[in-house]
Amino acid sequence: MIGLSSYAGVMESPMNSAVEQQPVSPLDNTWKQETINNQKPRSVGGFVLVHAGAGYHSESKAKEYKHVCKRACQRVSLLCVSSLCASISNNVLKDSPFTNAGTGSNLNLSGEIECDASIMDGKSLHFGAVGAIGGIRNPVLVANRLLSEAQKGKLSAGRIPPCFLVGRGAHDWAVSHGIPPCPSDKMATKFSLSAYKRNKRKMELAEKMDTGHNQTKKRRQSSENENGSGCLDTVGAVVVDLEGNVAAAVSSGGLAMKHPGRVGQAAHYGCGCWAENACNMNPYSTAVSTSGCGEHLIRTMLARECSAAMQSEDAHQALLEAMQNKFISSPFLASEDRVLGGVIVLRCCTCVDAQPSQSIQGILVEFLWSHTTESMCVGYMSAQDSKAKTHISRLPAGTVPGQSLAIEGGVCRLMVATFNPTAKQDC
Amino acid sequence: MIGLSSYAGVMESPMNSAVEQQPVSPLDNTWKQETINNQKPRSVGGFVLVHAGAGYHSESKAKEYKHVCKRACQRVSLLCVSSLCASISNNVLKDSPFTNAGTGSNLNLSGEIECDASIMDGKSLHFGAVGAIGGIRNPVLVANRLLSEAQKGKLSAGRIPPCFLVGRGAHDWAVSHGIPPCPSDKMATKFSLSAYKRNKRKMELAEKMDTGHNQTKKRRQSSENENGSGCLDTVGAVVVDLEGNVAAAVSSGGLAMKHPGRVGQAAHYGCGCWAENACNMNPYSTAVSTSGCGEHLIRTMLARECSAAMQSEDAHQALLEAMQNKFISSPFLASEDRVLGGVIVLRCCTCVDAQPSQSIQGILVEFLWSHTTESMCVGYMSAQDSKAKTHISRLPAGTVPGQSLAIEGGVCRLMVATFNPTAKQDC
Repeated sequence: MIGLSSYAGVMESPMNSAVEQQPVSPLDNTWKQETINNQKPRSVGGFVLVHAGAGYHSESKAKEYKHVCKRACQRVSLLCVSSLCASISNNVLKDSPFTNAGTGSNLNLSGEIECDASIMDGKSLHFGAVGAIGGIRNPVLVANRLLSEAQKGKLSAGRIPPCFLVGRGAHDWAVSHGIPPCPSDKMATKFSLSAYKRNKRKMELAEKMDTGHNQTKKRRQSSENENGSGCLDTVGAVVVDLEGNVAAAVSSGGLAMKHPGRVGQAAHYGCGCWAENACNMNPYSTAVSTSGCGEHLIRTMLARECSAAMQSEDAHQALLEAMQNKFISSPFLASEDRVLGGVIVLRCCTCVDAQPSQSIQGILVEFLWSHTTESMCVGYMSAQDSKAKTHISRLPAGTVPGQSLAIEGGVCRLMVATFNPTAKQDC
Repeated sequence: MIGLSSYAGVMESPMNSAVEQQPVSPLDNTWKQETINNQKPRSVGGFVLVHAGAGYHSESKAKEYKHVCKRACQRVSLLCVSSLCASISNNVLKDSPFTNAGTGSNLNLSGEIECDASIMDGKSLHFGAVGAIGGIRNPVLVANRLLSEAQKGKLSAGRIPPCFLVGRGAHDWAVSHGIPPCPSDKMATKFSLSAYKRNKRKMELAEKMDTGHNQTKKRRQSSENENGSGCLDTVGAVVVDLEGNVAAAVSSGGLAMKHPGRVGQAAHYGCGCWAENACNMNPYSTAVSTSGCGEHLIRTMLARECSAAMQSEDAHQALLEAMQNKFISSPFLASEDRVLGGVIVLRCCTCVDAQPSQSIQGILVEFLWSHTTESMCVGYMSAQDSKAKTHISRLPAGTVPGQSLAIEGGVCRLMVATFNPTAKQDC
């Protein structure tokens, strides 16, 4: 069990647990709220939770992983703008190597970089996505631009604006909308090129060793090099502003040595990210961003499933059940021996805390992450904080990646003092 | 109201109704089963329902639309093979112009043909899709090949096989897997080229007329030429075999004058097609294929929503409510003035009809279609029939496309005589 150190917010408490798939152990659900009474609530601009991928994060590089999470989070102070989506794409995810696109991204089989990204606005429920896009340093900017262009309404002659563009067409659309292209030779780094060469050698060796073996056996066998044992090269963010509006985004270079043109969950509606404001039917605003094996996350529509699950009372229990029943034990992945993925989740509701002289309006934010991969790197902070918290969550020793899960999180309250003494409802 | 003529199957009855969105009129639900007692049940290989798009089908071309539906349906006798998906892609949808790819497909802004297609197997729940693929006559064959390759398990070095490929990479993968490329100049027809020129002129005229106007106004205005008023250029099929296994597929050239790289619902998981066999939790096997405005169908995940809805008792009512609440009135499309789409749906369960001398095992198939577009062209038949039925469903006169819906369907029973006198359950 990994405890989170105390969070410099209004209130926050650690919550963590890890369970084996079979049998499901009783949860050590230590999630509780601790009001810091002597701390005066301050007005804040929002809350952000980011991930730098579910996969394997080595201890030796922990500092670097945490650094990129921290850097992304610290841009949260810029969140108090009119558009959460513009903010999430311009400030939180637009920063290589965190954006996982301009530099350091996985190369595909042909040695090229092709990225997927998507973004969803919980207020308008608009969505924008790009798949297998090359030559653009920050693909999430293109996804966001698609979203904002679609919000403007129809194109000439009544044509409906696209929400999803791929490949060369996506690149050309981006450039024609003022997003600068990036020369191919600047998309890869020394590190990503050497990883590509290493992976290619491993692949050739594996294929050589398979020669002469039964084809079916060859196709079905697992390998120590499989995708889950490396970092899965995805980043994402979920944010909420003071009005309870949520947004979510995800950006990915995809699996190493993927086939050119392969599109993973990061570009797929309902799979890479999801954001939905509270409404008549849903008491909570929810935002989810995923990472892991794209095909597993697509076929289970994990982002949307987790979002839907979070409308039930106990957020921690709901996420645990969703990860267990809709992912690890999903009938859609019955033939898979290891189901690899991770999610970050925000769920929020507005609340009012009545005080003798004033009432405190605010947003109660529950933030969680869960993964079946060996580890997942996350960071979080509210705009009032001077420093982000970062954390590498790991499966408990002895548990099996792809068959077990870890789940952790906390609670934060974003508050604004108002002067409405009639407010009664407790936070 | 349009009645279906009597269907040469074991039993079938027409069911149709049409409602305005506001207020929802009480449904004239005339769905009922009529047992044709003097007709001896025969063994059949399956049932297929196809659509040739939801959009606008002119009376003058009705014969042609019906012909392509009929031709596709009549290949249903080949359905009794081990793989429904291979059958649906090879026999039902592999036939231009029905496949809407090799010939007659909509050209994009650059005058090129790029197609989307996907297929889903209800038994394995595997899915394969291609997006914005050019130079391939039958994109659904590539989607099916992706599905079958994924079913074989992992690639060398533990790499996970892709379920979704786009653009040039999808084309190259197809060719490397033995699917022949088609030269660009053979992808377009005289008809599609002249439609392109006509559309381009209209677009240029519309843009010229907009010059000098307020940009926002320009973007938000509707036009007589908008996508809904033309045929939306998508085809699809849903099938069931005698064991109750279902599959669904869809293939599309996409909207006319779309941006290169634009991917519509036909390539999007949960949006273009859905198939799910009955299981512990779901009493019915369901299969859905959609057509219409891709962006509307993506953002509402209409195929999956309709499939999920069909688990409730009354299939007709369930589809009506799904189309009304999850599509026309969907919060995801709140900003749209017209919500354009159509679905074909199969829902099946096994049943046993006890007779004095023998018991008749079979599959009760309920088949439905519903659309908010002006019309939708469908065809259906079972493998025992010599001829397919075809039908162009139209919104009732005076109702508004995109705000009203039509819903029709019928019932068919596929039967196999067995000799198990202990069987009791009525069909």
